[in-house]
Amino acid sequence: MSIAEAGEFGLIARVIARLENGPTTLLGPGDDSAIVAAPDGRIVASTDVLVEGRHFRRDWSSGADVGHRAAGANLADIAAMGATPTALLVGLCAPTDLDVSWAEDLADGLAAEAGLVGASVVGGDMSSSPTLTIAVTALGDLGGRKPVLRSGAEPGDVIALAGRIGHAAAGYTVLSRGFRTPKALVEAYRRPAVPYEAGPAASRAGATAMIDVSDGLLQDLGHIARASVVGVDVRTDAFEVSDQMRDAATALGVDPFQWILGGGDDHALVATFPPGTGLPEGWQEIGVVHEGTGVTVDRKPWSGPLGWDHFR
Amino acid sequence: MSIAEAGEFGLIARVIARLENGPTTLLGPGDDSAIVAAPDGRIVASTDVLVEGRHFRRDWSSGADVGHRAAGANLADIAAMGATPTALLVGLCAPTDLDVSWAEDLADGLAAEAGLVGASVVGGDMSSSPTLTIAVTALGDLGGRKPVLRSGAEPGDVIALAGRIGHAAAGYTVLSRGFRTPKALVEAYRRPAVPYEAGPAASRAGATAMIDVSDGLLQDLGHIARASVVGVDVRTDAFEVSDQMRDAATALGVDPFQWILGGGDDHALVATFPPGTGLPEGWQEIGVVHEGTGVTVDRKPWSGPLGWDHFR
Repeated sequence: MSIAEAGEFGLIARVIARLENGPTTLLGPGDDSAIVAAPDGRIVASTDVLVEGRHFRRDWSSGADVGHRAAGANLADIAAMGATPTALLVGLCAPTDLDVSWAEDLADGLAAEAGLVGASVVGGDMSSSPTLTIAVTALGDLGGRKPVLRSGAEPGDVIALAGRIGHAAAGYTVLSRGFRTPKALVEAYRRPAVPYEAGPAASRAGATAMIDVSDGLLQDLGHIARASVVGVDVRTDAFEVSDQMRDAATALGVDPFQWILGGGDDHALVATFPPGTGLPEGWQEIGVVHEGTGVTVDRKPWSGPLGWDHFR
Repeated sequence: MSIAEAGEFGLIARVIARLENGPTTLLGPGDDSAIVAAPDGRIVASTDVLVEGRHFRRDWSSGADVGHRAAGANLADIAAMGATPTALLVGLCAPTDLDVSWAEDLADGLAAEAGLVGASVVGGDMSSSPTLTIAVTALGDLGGRKPVLRSGAEPGDVIALAGRIGHAAAGYTVLSRGFRTPKALVEAYRRPAVPYEAGPAASRAGATAMIDVSDGLLQDLGHIARASVVGVDVRTDAFEVSDQMRDAATALGVDPFQWILGGGDDHALVATFPPGTGLPEGWQEIGVVHEGTGVTVDRKPWSGPLGWDHFR
């Protein structure tokens, strides 16, 4: 059945029926607005848009995959402040011939990803559109902690990473070349494995700056460098290139560090910590903050691609 | 200059430069997430999407008009809970040849509309897309009050309306027929005049149910009737049809009550109050809640169009 046949209110009812309210949902979908607990007295909020052909392809990813990715990209922005996600709101713009089951799968993926952190889909909107587009807003709670901004890195701080890096970009390259394996890389592109808990853990451990890696590690570290008015240097020997990634890189004629340093979409977290900080579980050192500006790799300028500009 | 020439980060910088942080903005645009004050300990949140060709046309509305409308539609959902809006997050998907000035005008319109209630644009995202699409999420604060849901109307309650009704639909019809006047109607379509203060005022006065009129008065009252398990009756003699609207209706061969009862986009507020309630300023009685189901007009079924389905 197409969404035109189901009708706007029919589709909304079908989607709502698949959602469950989490512990922070005071009023879920169905009224003019949702109501979400904000015990901290401050709310952390972030928005991302995903456009078909730009951020996802239906022949590469299922509706559930796109739901996981759309939710993960947003929830990672909440974690990168050191906060705990509480809710998602979702705007869906879809061609009228989209199958209802695709929208239902999308809702399932969104709800499942949010459920990983105890958050839920609390509201949304739908419209027809020639271009399949998903707009997600995530909300979160700071639990009494100071937010971890991009601007707090200090010379001497250690740079550390939590989560998988380069795998999503490798999976993207694999799919772009018309392959469907290695499965682990393709799956990493389809569904990011965001280290949600590492965000609040970094905050509690005293992280001075943090960002999620959405556009590419060097580009996102560049945002920290600019906001903090420091230079950052990344050590390539800090990264273990898995056999799978190395094999795929060789087969495709790519330097795996293009994926690790320049590839987006993994939604790993990168943060800076004062020297001597005992890093929380899941974090590993990858470089150092110094006086100066810009981003270097092994103390040298990086000649590969930096990351992604959505209008180029 | 096109947005492709400005680049994603160039455009973001230009837009952010036009925004001002309001009193509830603890951290504005530029980091992974925004942070907004939520003194009530609960946050009210709502999302709307606007798609070019479906919700607006660039030859009918300026970027600033679309910004006012996109913000107003969302902020009205916050007011309809009896809450005060605090923040907007905006996702913009735009063709790469869109002129930067259009996006800047859009930002100005969003910020100006939010500014009417002391709220501000705190964050967003941008992507290229073949279809110009604006996704807005509004946040608000209940100020310690109970939310006014759709489900609380009781038989005997008075139905009351705050704000302009039918004007936006009249303006839409005028534009659809290729006219540009009467200006007052066209402007009402371009920029809703949302009675924001009437939402919290209704809550304080004891409103039992409330909704904003986005799809059409009868359709939106139908949502209250269903959620509250009651019937509602609207009296046509409660509405004063302005000379301007009557003249336009005559010229275009339309029954003005099609606009008043079936037309959306005005974002008036409609609420129910216990009998004998002294209605707050700006609210006027238009009907009554009774035992039963459904929506009637002057105690009879309504034969005109009910409202708008975004997938039909």
